[in-house]
Amino acid sequence: MNSQRYGRLFYLSSLNINYSQKQQQQQRFIRMNNCCRHTITLDNINDNVKRLEYAVRGPLVIRAGVIENELKQQQQSSSSSSSSSNNQRLFNEVIRANIGDCHAMGQRPLTFLRQVLACSSDDSLLTSQHYPNDVKERTRLMLKYCGGQSVGAYSDSAGVEIIRKHCAEYVSHRDGIESEWRDIVLTTGASEGIRSILALINTCSTDSLPSGVMIPIPQYPLYSATITEYGMYPINYYLDEDNQWSLNIDELKRSLNEAKVKCKPKAIVVINPGNPTGSVLTKKNIEDIIRFAKENKILIIADEVYQHNIYDGEFFSFKKILHELNEDIELASVMSASKGFMGECGLRGGYCELVNFDPSVKAMFFKMLSARLCSSILGQIALDCIVKPPDVDGESYERYHQEKSDVLAALKYRAKLVADTFNTIPGIKSNKVAGAMYAFPQIDIPKKAKEKATELGQAADFFYAMNLLETTGICVVPGSGFGQIPGTYHFRTTILPQNEKLEAMMKKFKQFHLNFMEQYS
Amino acid sequence: MNSQRYGRLFYLSSLNINYSQKQQQQQRFIRMNNCCRHTITLDNINDNVKRLEYAVRGPLVIRAGVIENELKQQQQSSSSSSSSSNNQRLFNEVIRANIGDCHAMGQRPLTFLRQVLACSSDDSLLTSQHYPNDVKERTRLMLKYCGGQSVGAYSDSAGVEIIRKHCAEYVSHRDGIESEWRDIVLTTGASEGIRSILALINTCSTDSLPSGVMIPIPQYPLYSATITEYGMYPINYYLDEDNQWSLNIDELKRSLNEAKVKCKPKAIVVINPGNPTGSVLTKKNIEDIIRFAKENKILIIADEVYQHNIYDGEFFSFKKILHELNEDIELASVMSASKGFMGECGLRGGYCELVNFDPSVKAMFFKMLSARLCSSILGQIALDCIVKPPDVDGESYERYHQEKSDVLAALKYRAKLVADTFNTIPGIKSNKVAGAMYAFPQIDIPKKAKEKATELGQAADFFYAMNLLETTGICVVPGSGFGQIPGTYHFRTTILPQNEKLEAMMKKFKQFHLNFMEQYS
Repeated sequence: MNSQRYGRLFYLSSLNINYSQKQQQQQRFIRMNNCCRHTITLDNINDNVKRLEYAVRGPLVIRAGVIENELKQQQQSSSSSSSSSNNQRLFNEVIRANIGDCHAMGQRPLTFLRQVLACSSDDSLLTSQHYPNDVKERTRLMLKYCGGQSVGAYSDSAGVEIIRKHCAEYVSHRDGIESEWRDIVLTTGASEGIRSILALINTCSTDSLPSGVMIPIPQYPLYSATITEYGMYPINYYLDEDNQWSLNIDELKRSLNEAKVKCKPKAIVVINPGNPTGSVLTKKNIEDIIRFAKENKILIIADEVYQHNIYDGEFFSFKKILHELNEDIELASVMSASKGFMGECGLRGGYCELVNFDPSVKAMFFKMLSARLCSSILGQIALDCIVKPPDVDGESYERYHQEKSDVLAALKYRAKLVADTFNTIPGIKSNKVAGAMYAFPQIDIPKKAKEKATELGQAADFFYAMNLLETTGICVVPGSGFGQIPGTYHFRTTILPQNEKLEAMMKKFKQFHLNFMEQYS
Repeated sequence: MNSQRYGRLFYLSSLNINYSQKQQQQQRFIRMNNCCRHTITLDNINDNVKRLEYAVRGPLVIRAGVIENELKQQQQSSSSSSSSSNNQRLFNEVIRANIGDCHAMGQRPLTFLRQVLACSSDDSLLTSQHYPNDVKERTRLMLKYCGGQSVGAYSDSAGVEIIRKHCAEYVSHRDGIESEWRDIVLTTGASEGIRSILALINTCSTDSLPSGVMIPIPQYPLYSATITEYGMYPINYYLDEDNQWSLNIDELKRSLNEAKVKCKPKAIVVINPGNPTGSVLTKKNIEDIIRFAKENKILIIADEVYQHNIYDGEFFSFKKILHELNEDIELASVMSASKGFMGECGLRGGYCELVNFDPSVKAMFFKMLSARLCSSILGQIALDCIVKPPDVDGESYERYHQEKSDVLAALKYRAKLVADTFNTIPGIKSNKVAGAMYAFPQIDIPKKAKEKATELGQAADFFYAMNLLETTGICVVPGSGFGQIPGTYHFRTTILPQNEKLEAMMKKFKQFHLNFMEQYS
């Protein structure tokens, strides 16, 4: 793959950028005099690591960082002297629409959550007048369940007991069916839960065929990256772009049947609400998926981290529908503190619920987690504040719900703004953004632009996105990073820039696209 | 292995403990009526996961939790009514000497560090009178480098830039040689760094022989667990108990030679100061290890998380000695916020420094990390407060250093107390606890006790440790969890209980041991 080679070159060069002259010389010297001095080389490291790709943080994003630094230097030099550089850019900031990083894009954290974190970090605040009583009460409850009443103690590998219980209560309340807290483990974001489940079911070390995992195309690249890293086999099924990115059961059957000679199918990943698609699955679609999984005896991994991000339609958890259908097949559902109305990506809190698992398998899963010690206690506490908001009679109740609904209302506005604006641009077509934080529009790329991309050894949508970045400072991720039907081109943008900035961004985007089409028509 | 089978049974039973009656019946019902309903069973999950063991959190620790709950219930029922249960225990608390969990054992966190965390969590504290100025300054610096000035934003996968720079300054200052911040990645504790390095060099997916990693025996079970999980081959080398648990080069050669037909040797793990041994390696020993690694073209993985915990002797980093020897072989050194004088296990902060790595390999390592997003920002900030203490002219300077030296002085006192006391007990022999937080004494186990253990399907030292737990509430980890020369028996205890508690614990221990010897003599 061209983009892969391109990617590697970029990584290499990015490593050296800004290295001091002296060090560069030193390195050249060492290389010249001792070219074979390394024990660990590209030829003898893990081949799976070499092959894995993670576009959301790939070469485009690295280039965005370089441009950001250039802009900073320009701004510094233009403010300190008049000797400005010649290649001034036509924009003064990079807009990072490449990653679902809410706070980085200006979203404010929930006050209650942060106050509980502060109080939990420094318990002297418990005796100050600074915080409402319900913050202090929550903190005391959290610390009571921590070793030595400190967030600096390890928890059980599965997490702090009371927080697991609150997660179970949250799930019970959401679905209207009982949830068992011992089936819930607290993880470092949702990512660790997903990676651990994949590790659990991976039998590559003993089977002659690799373990297969069905993943949507387009997909969130954590899946493809982890599957590659673990030597598993990705069974790609295409989402139905013409039907709001739903799952088409015939397509599931096709992909599974074709893969059966190449792997041992183990699981199907479903991301709902969709990343990068912004879709929300209907109840009927979920029912069909469950029946399909049952028929084919595969585990359902439900990535439900965007369950609060619904702007159109309704969220149905896989667990609830499983229960309604009276099915008892295995399901692993993951949730995170990083998305929703809280957006606490940096705190790394998440949970994974194991539904209908054989107790002995569950025991193995817990044992595996124990070698990772535990996830961040403060991340766990952040999650607690989400699954168990302040009580209705607490001082923080009103503010919490006001902040929550403000964030969700703003996201809903932007979801519509983004999709609607794209659909006014000739050559761009976007589905409704019904959920999550992304749009994944399809773009027509003119023949000449494709040829230029080929000439540069780049995928056409990578070429498009790189042009967008260099011209406007807008950083999106090309569709090739998520997968798409060959011959079609997309990109993913978040809807996270604050309203005013997003409105300006959409204008710039439109202008860029029109110019691009003209330039290559 | 007997302890393995025993372990699994324990895990299984622990999962059911305290499950409600109703649920148990339900489960039995499901099992009876649909015994083969599970898609994922012990027969089709990852064999490596089934095989892995993690004794520090194994069956003994689970049993300790059960006893703790019993004690709580006893205390509740004895305070609420007089109908106490018949099988009252002779102790009223479990002493968790099984895990290096400082705060859980009563160590107080560093004030400066916790104030910076609180302020970083809730930036409204920046305008309050509650905190010293240097706390606020540090917080402002941290937030300046966070996306959107929030600890809720993702950082680069390698960590927040300024914190990586502070880590590099710390290493430079420690070793007196320049350190490059781009060679340092911030990780979820030291564990993630270690696991990632092992993943990087693991070529099991392409080689006919598994990748071999030399690990000390006794070792910290994270290594054996991860090596098993990854399908790698553990090359066990015995530490020299008669020489303060140093590394014997002849033994390294023996183990490597014997393993060469079974694996492709890739790396040697050295834990210094030692876990579970409490040893501190001499400069001469480190020099010999470096030469051995060079000769055999293997990577050195230096687990140096206890570098502040030195009670006797001096800490030499592998990096410093590498530099002194003018060698340029590869080294990965890990450090953590969980140990030392801070003991912030629950915050999950750590770093890994890659020394002398080929830039292209480093690029692959960074790419692999990118799929894990980033480690906890608050964990990273905690690490910052350790590698960069308050400035000498700051308000927090004096308190920080007082707290640090108090903790280290207490640990030094306890290190001596523990080793000295064990050496007064007939049948127990302990090396000096020169560093880290553990003693790993050897015990004579009487023949009758060994027979009893065999009868129960247990390892003899597991039997000893379980007896200790049931009789006294003291929870230690049997030597079989770390490895030991066959026919010898050990256990690991931490030196973390606060002074008074530790003194009492040592008395109880002595009494238990004498009774045990009498009972089985």
